[in-house]
Amino acid sequence: MAVFALVNKESKERQMNILEEAIQTRRKIHSRPEEGWTEFETSYLVSERLKSLGWQVYIGLDALVPEEVLGRNPELVEKAIERAAKQGVPAAFLESTQGYTGVVGTFDTGRQGPRTAFRFDMDCVQVQETSDANHVPVKEGFASQIPGMMHACGHDGHTAVGLALARWIVENKEDLCGSFVFIFQPAEEGTRGAGPIAAKGWVDDVNFFFAGHCGMYCQQGQLGIGAKGFFATSKLDVSFTGIPSHAGAYPERGRSALTAACSAVMMMQGISRNSEGDTRVSIGKLNAGEGRNVTPVHAAIQLETRGETEEVNNFLVKNVTNIVRGAAEAYEVKYEIKLVGHATTLTTTPKGVELLKRAAETVEGYKTVDIYNSIGGSEDVSLLFPTLTPDSSRNLREPRLHRGSQTL
Amino acid sequence: MAVFALVNKESKERQMNILEEAIQTRRKIHSRPEEGWTEFETSYLVSERLKSLGWQVYIGLDALVPEEVLGRNPELVEKAIERAAKQGVPAAFLESTQGYTGVVGTFDTGRQGPRTAFRFDMDCVQVQETSDANHVPVKEGFASQIPGMMHACGHDGHTAVGLALARWIVENKEDLCGSFVFIFQPAEEGTRGAGPIAAKGWVDDVNFFFAGHCGMYCQQGQLGIGAKGFFATSKLDVSFTGIPSHAGAYPERGRSALTAACSAVMMMQGISRNSEGDTRVSIGKLNAGEGRNVTPVHAAIQLETRGETEEVNNFLVKNVTNIVRGAAEAYEVKYEIKLVGHATTLTTTPKGVELLKRAAETVEGYKTVDIYNSIGGSEDVSLLFPTLTPDSSRNLREPRLHRGSQTL
Amino acid sequence: MAVFALVNKESKERQMNILEEAIQTRRKIHSRPEEGWTEFETSYLVSERLKSLGWQVYIGLDALVPEEVLGRNPELVEKAIERAAKQGVPAAFLESTQGYTGVVGTFDTGRQGPRTAFRFDMDCVQVQETSDANHVPVKEGFASQIPGMMHACGHDGHTAVGLALARWIVENKEDLCGSFVFIFQPAEEGTRGAGPIAAKGWVDDVNFFFAGHCGMYCQQGQLGIGAKGFFATSKLDVSFTGIPSHAGAYPERGRSALTAACSAVMMMQGISRNSEGDTRVSIGKLNAGEGRNVTPVHAAIQLETRGETEEVNNFLVKNVTNIVRGAAEAYEVKYEIKLVGHATTLTTTPKGVELLKRAAETVEGYKTVDIYNSIGGSEDVSLLFPTLTPDSSRNLREPRLHRGSQTL
Amino acid sequence: MAVFALVNKESKERQMNILEEAIQTRRKIHSRPEEGWTEFETSYLVSERLKSLGWQVYIGLDALVPEEVLGRNPELVEKAIERAAKQGVPAAFLESTQGYTGVVGTFDTGRQGPRTAFRFDMDCVQVQETSDANHVPVKEGFASQIPGMMHACGHDGHTAVGLALARWIVENKEDLCGSFVFIFQPAEEGTRGAGPIAAKGWVDDVNFFFAGHCGMYCQQGQLGIGAKGFFATSKLDVSFTGIPSHAGAYPERGRSALTAACSAVMMMQGISRNSEGDTRVSIGKLNAGEGRNVTPVHAAIQLETRGETEEVNNFLVKNVTNIVRGAAEAYEVKYEIKLVGHATTLTTTPKGVELLKRAAETVEGYKTVDIYNSIGGSEDVSLLFPTLTPDSSRNLREPRLHRGSQTL
Repeated sequence: MAVFALVNKESKERQMNILEEAIQTRRKIHSRPEEGWTEFETSYLVSERLKSLGWQVYIGLDALVPEEVLGRNPELVEKAIERAAKQGVPAAFLESTQGYTGVVGTFDTGRQGPRTAFRFDMDCVQVQETSDANHVPVKEGFASQIPGMMHACGHDGHTAVGLALARWIVENKEDLCGSFVFIFQPAEEGTRGAGPIAAKGWVDDVNFFFAGHCGMYCQQGQLGIGAKGFFATSKLDVSFTGIPSHAGAYPERGRSALTAACSAVMMMQGISRNSEGDTRVSIGKLNAGEGRNVTPVHAAIQLETRGETEEVNNFLVKNVTNIVRGAAEAYEVKYEIKLVGHATTLTTTPKGVELLKRAAETVEGYKTVDIYNSIGGSEDVSLLFPTLTPDSSRNLREPRLHRGSQTL
Repeated sequence: MAVFALVNKESKERQMNILEEAIQTRRKIHSRPEEGWTEFETSYLVSERLKSLGWQVYIGLDALVPEEVLGRNPELVEKAIERAAKQGVPAAFLESTQGYTGVVGTFDTGRQGPRTAFRFDMDCVQVQETSDANHVPVKEGFASQIPGMMHACGHDGHTAVGLALARWIVENKEDLCGSFVFIFQPAEEGTRGAGPIAAKGWVDDVNFFFAGHCGMYCQQGQLGIGAKGFFATSKLDVSFTGIPSHAGAYPERGRSALTAACSAVMMMQGISRNSEGDTRVSIGKLNAGEGRNVTPVHAAIQLETRGETEEVNNFLVKNVTNIVRGAAEAYEVKYEIKLVGHATTLTTTPKGVELLKRAAETVEGYKTVDIYNSIGGSEDVSLLFPTLTPDSSRNLREPRLHRGSQTL
Repeated sequence: MAVFALVNKESKERQMNILEEAIQTRRKIHSRPEEGWTEFETSYLVSERLKSLGWQVYIGLDALVPEEVLGRNPELVEKAIERAAKQGVPAAFLESTQGYTGVVGTFDTGRQGPRTAFRFDMDCVQVQETSDANHVPVKEGFASQIPGMMHACGHDGHTAVGLALARWIVENKEDLCGSFVFIFQPAEEGTRGAGPIAAKGWVDDVNFFFAGHCGMYCQQGQLGIGAKGFFATSKLDVSFTGIPSHAGAYPERGRSALTAACSAVMMMQGISRNSEGDTRVSIGKLNAGEGRNVTPVHAAIQLETRGETEEVNNFLVKNVTNIVRGAAEAYEVKYEIKLVGHATTLTTTPKGVELLKRAAETVEGYKTVDIYNSIGGSEDVSLLFPTLTPDSSRNLREPRLHRGSQTL
Repeated sequence: MAVFALVNKESKERQMNILEEAIQTRRKIHSRPEEGWTEFETSYLVSERLKSLGWQVYIGLDALVPEEVLGRNPELVEKAIERAAKQGVPAAFLESTQGYTGVVGTFDTGRQGPRTAFRFDMDCVQVQETSDANHVPVKEGFASQIPGMMHACGHDGHTAVGLALARWIVENKEDLCGSFVFIFQPAEEGTRGAGPIAAKGWVDDVNFFFAGHCGMYCQQGQLGIGAKGFFATSKLDVSFTGIPSHAGAYPERGRSALTAACSAVMMMQGISRNSEGDTRVSIGKLNAGEGRNVTPVHAAIQLETRGETEEVNNFLVKNVTNIVRGAAEAYEVKYEIKLVGHATTLTTTPKGVELLKRAAETVEGYKTVDIYNSIGGSEDVSLLFPTLTPDSSRNLREPRLHRGSQTL
C-alpha cells in the first residue's frame, strides 16, 4: 500500500523530533513482537500514547465486534495476557480489553471538515530473528525478546508511524480541519483483524481512508501507490474426524480421516479455473493420523483460496465446501470448516491517487511515484474500504455458509 | 457346480436314446445363442418340450417377479422378440412371456415324497465363435448363427441335460415319488436372473435343490462338488450427470461428470480390507465425456463388488454408495446407482454331498468325486438355495438401499 | 478473425457475379462436408478452380510437411478417398495428394510489390444437420449429404470467399502489384492442419498475412478485428495399456489402465495455476475397460491444455507429461502421449488493423469496426503468423518431447 | 506367542525365590521404561545379572549387525545414553554398546545336547502411565518415572522371566544338557530389532527356539500356543521434498510435496487385493507443509503393509514403491522410502507345540492349552525362526530394493 507523506518541508525542525520519537517507538515495538490477537503490550503502548496526546481511545469491545473475529486462539491469548502482565501492563488495562487487542483513536480538530481514517497494523510474524551480530536490531540492542516471533513484515514501523502522525496532527491542529480515525489493527497476518473493526462501523462515515505498507517494491525516495490488484481471499481450516481401529486386525471398523483429507486435497487442487478472474487454491498444511497402525482419527488442513474478484473467490470457497462435505460423506467421517481469515479486493480512487502524488512531491528526498495495478497478494485492509467496496465490508461476511461446521 | 448323476446302469438302453436327444437339443441351442433376458427361442424350445412330456409349464410373470429383475435391457429384448418371431416362435408364445424369458416346469409323480428342484441356466455369453474348420460346431454344422454371441460357457449343455432329465423322470415316474421343480433360468451371466425366480417362491418349499455346471475344473469321469467358496457379489452401474460448458471459454460454468467418476474410482479402489472375509472391488469400465473441449456431461461406470460373506459384500456396497453420493456432492453432479446383478454365498449340505457321491458311483465311466471349497467366482444359483441360506434369498434383496437412484 | 473487405464500390457489377459464384460454391461445399484430413472433394474443387483462374497450385507433399501433420486418422482418409472417387474425383488427382488434403495457390501480378498471404480453412465439424424443412440448406436443396457431418462452423463460406477473392485478384491484376499466397487449409478443427503448412515455409517470406472467420460476435455490416486473445493450446491423446486378469479370481495379476487413467485425471485437474497467464486443462473424454469383471487393459483420454502465452501452455503440457509418466510408473502400465493438435497465441499488427479498417469503410453496407482483445478460444492460424510470432511457428513444434511415446 | 512353562512341581521351594526375584526385577524395569533402541538401563541390568549368574554376555556390535538395524533414531539414542549415565550406568558399559542396545547371553551345560534359544523383548511403548492411586504400579511405588513411556505391552515381564529362567538353568544345570542362547531383544515395537540379531547368526545353529508373550487372549492358568497367523509386515517411512513458492504470487514455481503425498496415499489405498492371501495397507500418519500460503516443501508418511504370506507382503511393498516413485515423477518432487521395520510369517512346529503342551501340564494351576491359528498381528520374532522359515530371515531382507532412496 501507499506509504503516505508525513510532513511538509516547513516544519522540518519539529519533524526531526517526531522522527526520533518514531524510531524509538518502532524499536521498542520491534523488541516485543506479538502475533495476531496477542498484541497486548503493543495495544497498551499505543493506547497510552494516544491518550497522552489527547486522543479519544477505544479498546476491546468498544473497538471491534467479537462475533466477527477470525482465527483467534484463546490459549495464545491467555498466555499473551500473562506475558504482558509480567512486562508491567496494568491489570486494569488488560481487563478492559476483554481479551481483544486493537486500538481505535479519534481526534476532532473542532473545525468542520472531512473525516479521515488511517489504518496501521500491529502484529508480527512467526519468524525467528537472526542473532547475527551485524543485524541492526542485534547491534543496536532492540532485537526480538520473544523466541520465534519477529516484526519481519514492518508492522512495528507502521505502528510507530501511526503514533508519530497522531502527534503531528495534534501539533498542527490549528492548520487542520475535520476529524480523524486511527485504526491500530490486530491480526493483519492471516487477514483476520480488519473484519471485526469494519463491522463496528468505524469507517462507515469517513470521507478519506488511507493505509500503507513500508518497503514492498519501493526504494528509498519512491512512493508506490497500489491502485488495485489485491486478491480476495479466504483462509480456511478444515478438519475431519474419523473412527479409530487397529488397521491390521479390524481395518473395516475404522474410518480414516487421513484418507478423507487426501481425497479432499486431490479434489480441491482440481477446482476449475474461472473465466471471470484469476484463481488460487493453496493447500498449505495437512496433519493427520496418530500412529502407523491405527486408522487415523484426526486430520487438519490449512488452506486458502484467492480470487481476482470477490465472486471468483466465493466460487472457490463454495467448491471447497462442497468437496469437504462430499469427502466426509464418501468416507463416513465428520468434518468442520472454519473461516479463519478473509480479505477482499480493493481499488484506490483516482482522487486518492492524486492526493498522495501531490503530497509526495512536498517531501524531502522524494524521487518518484509508481502506480501498481497487480500486487499479487491479499490484505484485509480491503475490508475497511468504505465507499469503493461498499458491499465487500458487509456482504462478504454475511453468507457465511462456510463458517459453521456440520456433523453427518 | 456339481454335475449331477443322470441315470443308473439298469436303464442303459433308454439312456442312449435320451443321450442322443440331449446331444441334438444341445446342438440346436448352441446354434441359436441368446444373451441374458433375450432367451425367447430357447424358452420356447424348453417350454414346448416340457409340455410334450406332460409337465406343467410356467412362463413370463407366472415364472418370476418382474420387480426383482436386474440388468434387463428393454431394447435388446425388443430386438430378440423380433428375431424369435422371424425364427418361427409363435406370436402367442411371445405375447404370453410378457417380455420376460425363463421357464419353470413342475411334475408330480402322484406319490407322496420330497419336492426336488433343479436349476438349469439358458443364456449365452458375448463371444464371437471361431470359424475355424476344425472347431467341432463348425465341422458338424451347429455353430452360432448369431454374430458376437456364443454358448461358450456351456449353458446350452445345461439346458439340454435339463430336458433329458425331465424325460427320464417321466419315463421312470413309476419308480419315483414326490414332485419336481425344474427352473430353466435366464440371465445367469451377470447374476441377474435367479433373484426374480427365487422371489416367486419356487424354492420356498422344496426339500432338495440341485444345480450343476459342466466342465470347470473336472475331467471326463470326474464329479466335482462345490461344497462352498462362491463370493457374494453385487453388479452395479453408476452414472454421473454433470453440466456442459465450453472448457476453454467458461470452465467454471461446467460440472464434470468425468472428474466426479475418476474421483469416485480412486476412492472405491481404496475401500478398506475387511477382517471378516476376503473382498474384491472391480471397476471394469468407465466411459465419460462428449468432446475434447466440452466439460463432460455423462459418465458411466460398470463395477462389481465381491465378498467372502454376504455381510462383507454389503460392507463394500455400502462404501460404494457412500462414495458415489460423496463424489456427486463434491462435484455438484447428479448420480444414479443401479443394481444390475446380485448373488450370494452358498454352502452345500453334507447330505447333498453324500447323495451326489453315491449317485456318481452308479454311473458308467465314473472315476472320482472331488470336493471344492474355494471356487473364486460368483453364481446367482446361490439366491435359489432355500434352506441353507434362508436369509440370503430374501433379506439380501430387501434393504435395497443401493438399488434406487437419487438426485441432488 | 477479421472478415476482410472483398471489393470496393467501383467494381460493383463484377462483384455481383463473383458473389453469385461464391454463393454457388459455398452451397456445393456445404452439401459435401468433409472433416479434418478428409477434404478430398473440397481440395479437388479448390484445385480445379484455382487452376482455371491461372493460379499455380500445390497439393499433397508440395503443400505441406507430412511429419508435422497432427491428428490424421489413416482409416478415415482411406474411406474418404473411396468416397471422393465415387463422387467423380479423378484417380490421378487423388494419387497426387499422396493422402494429404490441403491446397496452396500462388499468383504473381508480375509487378514488384509485397507478398500477401491469406488462409481459408476447409474442414467441417461432426454435427448432424437438421432435416427441418425451414432450415435454408434443406429448403434450397444444399443440405449435407454426409450423415453426421456438417459445415456448422462456416468453413464452406471461408473457402468460397477464398475462391471468389482469387478470381477478383485475377480480374483486377492490372491494378495490383506483388504476389499472393492462398492457403486452403485442412483440419483447422482440432488445430491440426496449420502446422504442417507453416513448416513447408509458405509464410516465411510474406509481407502481409490475413485470415478471417465469418460470424463470431459480429452482426451484418460489422467488421470484428481480433487484435489478440487466442490461447496457445495443445490437444493431447493419452492412452494407457495395462494387463488383464479376472478381477475376482486373480486381481493381483492385472494392471488397471482404467485406474491409472483416473489417477492421472485427478492429478492433471490439479495442475497449478500460473501467475504468468491464464490456464485451462480440459479432460474431455475418457474411455476405459473391456468388461465388468476384467482388469481394464485399455484407457484413452482426450484432453487439451490452453495457456495465455505459449510458455504457460508449455508449462501445462510438461505437467501433463510428467503426470502421465508418473501414473504409468505407479500402476506398472504402459503409456502413450500423442500431440494431435496445436496452436499458439497471436497478436494482430497495428498496421494490419489500420489496413482492415480503411478497407472496411469502402464496403457498401459497412457499419462499424470492432476490436476484440479477448476471444477466449484457440486457432491454429496462429502457427502461420510469420513475423509477429517468429518463434511460435517453429520453436513450439520443436521441443516435441511430448509427441513421442514411451514404454516402461 | 506361547507362554512357556517355567518350572516343574518338584522345585517348588526354589521356585518361590526365583518368582520373588522376577517380580522385583519386573518392577524395577517397569519403573524405567525405554522405547526401542534406547534400552540402555535395561540392557545394563540384564547384562549385569547374566554375568553374575555365570553366563557369557554379548552386547553392542557383538550382539547384532548394525547395517540391518531399522528405525533407530540417533537423537533419541543420544538422549537415552545421557539419561542412563545419570542413572548410574557406567560409562564403560555405555561405550561398549557402541550405541546399540540388546543383550545376548549364552550358557553351556558342558554336556552334549541340543542348542536351545529363547527370545525376550525389552522395549516399552509410548503411552503415558495413569497416575490413578489404585493402579498397582502407583500403589506399590513402581510406576513409570519417564513421562510418556510405559511398559504397557508386558515386555518388562518378559525380560524378568528371561532372567529368572537364566537363573533356573544355572541352578538346575546338573539336570540339563546342551547349551542355551538367550536373546534380550531391543525394539520389538515397530518390528525393528529382531532382524539385526538374526543377521548376526545367533539362531543359525539352534535346535529349539522359543518366545512368548504374556497376556494376549489367555486367562490365568491358560497356555495359548500361536501355531500360525502372524502377518508378514513392512513398516515404511516415505518422504517427499518439493520446492517452495508463494502460493499466491507464484504458484507455478512451487512443487507441492503435500499434493504428491495425497496422490500417493490415494493410490496406495487402492493397491489391489491379492488372491494368494489377505492384505493390509495402513497409512497411519501424514504430516506435510509449512504454512498456509507456501507451496509445501516437506511431506512425511508413516505406513505399513501386511500380507498373509511374505510374497503377498512383498507384492504390497513393490506397489507402494512404484506408487511413491510415480507420484514423485508426476509432481517433480524428490522422494525417499525407508524401511523402518519388518517381520515375516511364522509357523510353530508340531514338535514344539507338543513339547509346550507337555511342559504346561506339569505346572501348578494349569488349566488348558489353546492353539491359535490366526492372531492378526505381526511379530519380528518371526525373523529369528531358524529352521521353519529359512528364507525369511535372510532373503526377505535381501532384495531390499525398497530400503534405499532415490532422487529424481
